Amino acid sequence: MKKTLLACTAFLFAITCGCISAQDITYHNAKKFTLIGKAFETGGHYHRVDTAKYSAMRLTVKRIFTNTAGLAVVFKTNSSVIHARWKNKHVFSANNMTPIGHSGLDLYVKDGKEWVLAGIGRPSIKGTESSWKLAGPLPVGEREYLLYLPLYNELTDLEIGIDKDAVIESLPNPFRKKIVVYGSSITQGASASRPGMAYTSRISRNTGLYLINLGLSGNGKMEPEVADMLSEIEGVDAFVLDCIANPTPEEISQRTAYMVKKIRSTYPDAPIIFVQRMPDSPSVLTPEDRKTVDRKNRNLEAEFDKLRAEGIKNLHMIRYDSSKFPDNEGTTDGIHPNDVGFSYLIDIIQPKLKKLVR
Amino acid sequence: MKKTLLACTAFLFAITCGCISAQDITYHNAKKFTLIGKAFETGGHYHRVDTAKYSAMRLTVKRIFTNTAGLAVVFKTNSSVIHARWKNKHVFSANNMTPIGHSGLDLYVKDGKEWVLAGIGRPSIKGTESSWKLAGPLPVGEREYLLYLPLYNELTDLEIGIDKDAVIESLPNPFRKKIVVYGSSITQGASASRPGMAYTSRISRNTGLYLINLGLSGNGKMEPEVADMLSEIEGVDAFVLDCIANPTPEEISQRTAYMVKKIRSTYPDAPIIFVQRMPDSPSVLTPEDRKTVDRKNRNLEAEFDKLRAEGIKNLHMIRYDSSKFPDNEGTTDGIHPNDVGFSYLIDIIQPKLKKLVR
Repeated sequence: MKKTLLACTAFLFAITCGCISAQDITYHNAKKFTLIGKAFETGGHYHRVDTAKYSAMRLTVKRIFTNTAGLAVVFKTNSSVIHARWKNKHVFSANNMTPIGHSGLDLYVKDGKEWVLAGIGRPSIKGTESSWKLAGPLPVGEREYLLYLPLYNELTDLEIGIDKDAVIESLPNPFRKKIVVYGSSITQGASASRPGMAYTSRISRNTGLYLINLGLSGNGKMEPEVADMLSEIEGVDAFVLDCIANPTPEEISQRTAYMVKKIRSTYPDAPIIFVQRMPDSPSVLTPEDRKTVDRKNRNLEAEFDKLRAEGIKNLHMIRYDSSKFPDNEGTTDGIHPNDVGFSYLIDIIQPKLKKLVR
Repeated sequence: MKKTLLACTAFLFAITCGCISAQDITYHNAKKFTLIGKAFETGGHYHRVDTAKYSAMRLTVKRIFTNTAGLAVVFKTNSSVIHARWKNKHVFSANNMTPIGHSGLDLYVKDGKEWVLAGIGRPSIKGTESSWKLAGPLPVGEREYLLYLPLYNELTDLEIGIDKDAVIESLPNPFRKKIVVYGSSITQGASASRPGMAYTSRISRNTGLYLINLGLSGNGKMEPEVADMLSEIEGVDAFVLDCIANPTPEEISQRTAYMVKKIRSTYPDAPIIFVQRMPDSPSVLTPEDRKTVDRKNRNLEAEFDKLRAEGIKNLHMIRYDSSKFPDNEGTTDGIHPNDVGFSYLIDIIQPKLKKLVR
């Protein structure tokens, strides 16, 4: 009787909490499977950039490049459940993000030609170690999965749990072409509701294009050391520079030419696509902010014109289009897009990208 | 020199952190100003329902009715900045919500005929006391404001800070009609990015209608004690019952007739509008969940038909319309809408509401 009660309690806990498996699960180190979204194959496994190789970059820049924004593990399995255990370096700390987006996991499954949400991994809020059942019970069958990693944390360990008698295998990168998106916190994914909702990942799923997220929260300042690194990424088909939120208007004037010319030194023809600074808070209330945004866009425009006048080709500018921002509801905090705001941005960026990268 | 450095540091801290005022601010207890969104005027000031009067309701139900979901303070001021200091009862604890949405503040300003975002109050993540500059520096002028309170916390104290020589005054409720929305966590606002993005508040701003948020996270189970309370709310023009996520299919069969008839005992004519359970996760992966949702909708439909056959008029059903859910991106965690998912819901609910409540 006591035993039955105990088993019953354990079962109820398992189904309500979702964090303990009622079945026998075998865990596989995710390092065995394809990891997409990295700018370089080298460096720390879950780091976007090899920060040891590019040691001249600012300390904060290097630290943020260890965040797993835009990275995803690609695999297929016939398991009836999918669990995860993962460790982050830092405790959740962003009041404008969900813990799921900041430090959690986001699982997509291939459904016909589309990637659709299969489940999420809820992280610990107070600690760095988490465990969650991502999906299941699933109907019988083998399926392809994309597991997006935390947007704003450094992942130190990840294991994928499946039925002990199931099979799990690596898959090739399902996306084609390689588009490097260098940017600010908005690119990194603040404030998407979960990791797969960063705009780079949404555009990848929408179009099949392979976007590399090099968003640098508050630090996409177009520094020469970062330009040097960008120019050395291999096999790039296009560069998107969506960083204008971070540098000052003066830094934009000082650094744009160097960044473009450095990229042109290794990529003579690849499209380089600037994205203008989008407005954040209502202009009626923040005339000073509005003026700064205008100065940034003007300075960028001036550099852009100079570079074109110097004969640099295949330079593009995605301009702010107010008709694509039908209301003022698209931010979480007045600055960072919520998922609605990201939809507005995607409506502006995606068509241009599809046209330029065929 | 030392003094200048200190002042300079304080100033920089103030503008970068946003949490300390560089000016002289006078704080006003928000209880002095109109509070909208309460079902009853009585009870704890920041409680949606008088839980002492309706003591027969379950303990958890009473606890959740102390959350400030949908409540907002309405005032006008000519201050050049707007600050807030507030205390919540609980520490942030939801991994599928932003701390801003869960425990923070959301300030809107009247811009012509529209309410637009003016700024947010970022809460402490680890504590219960918070302080933030919501907006400013603002251009000279008197403006009308709506300050939305935390969606998932119990507010125990709130002060609004303005320039010491500025004036602040209460305003009447800017919304008309009174629509009581009884529901689940989705109604309460999980997972809106900030308090003003709960769908009830978005519909209010879009239409001018006054929606009362009686969302009860996980606990909108249509209990008779809650039906009794709903029937006693005064001056209601319509009832929306968007709770179907929470009761079991059997509870829906058992409790729907009582709830409708109880409301009809005090409101013989007001529209009663059911909202079908919307699907959450991809049906390909969760056939069991899908079956449960179907049973809930079927049981609701059966009760609905019986009540109409008994001669109860002005009963309505908002049905799930798959064409309004163009993709599977509209949740934060597979269940709770993100802001994109709330946009889909609003596209379904708002037109019906506007038609029924003129």
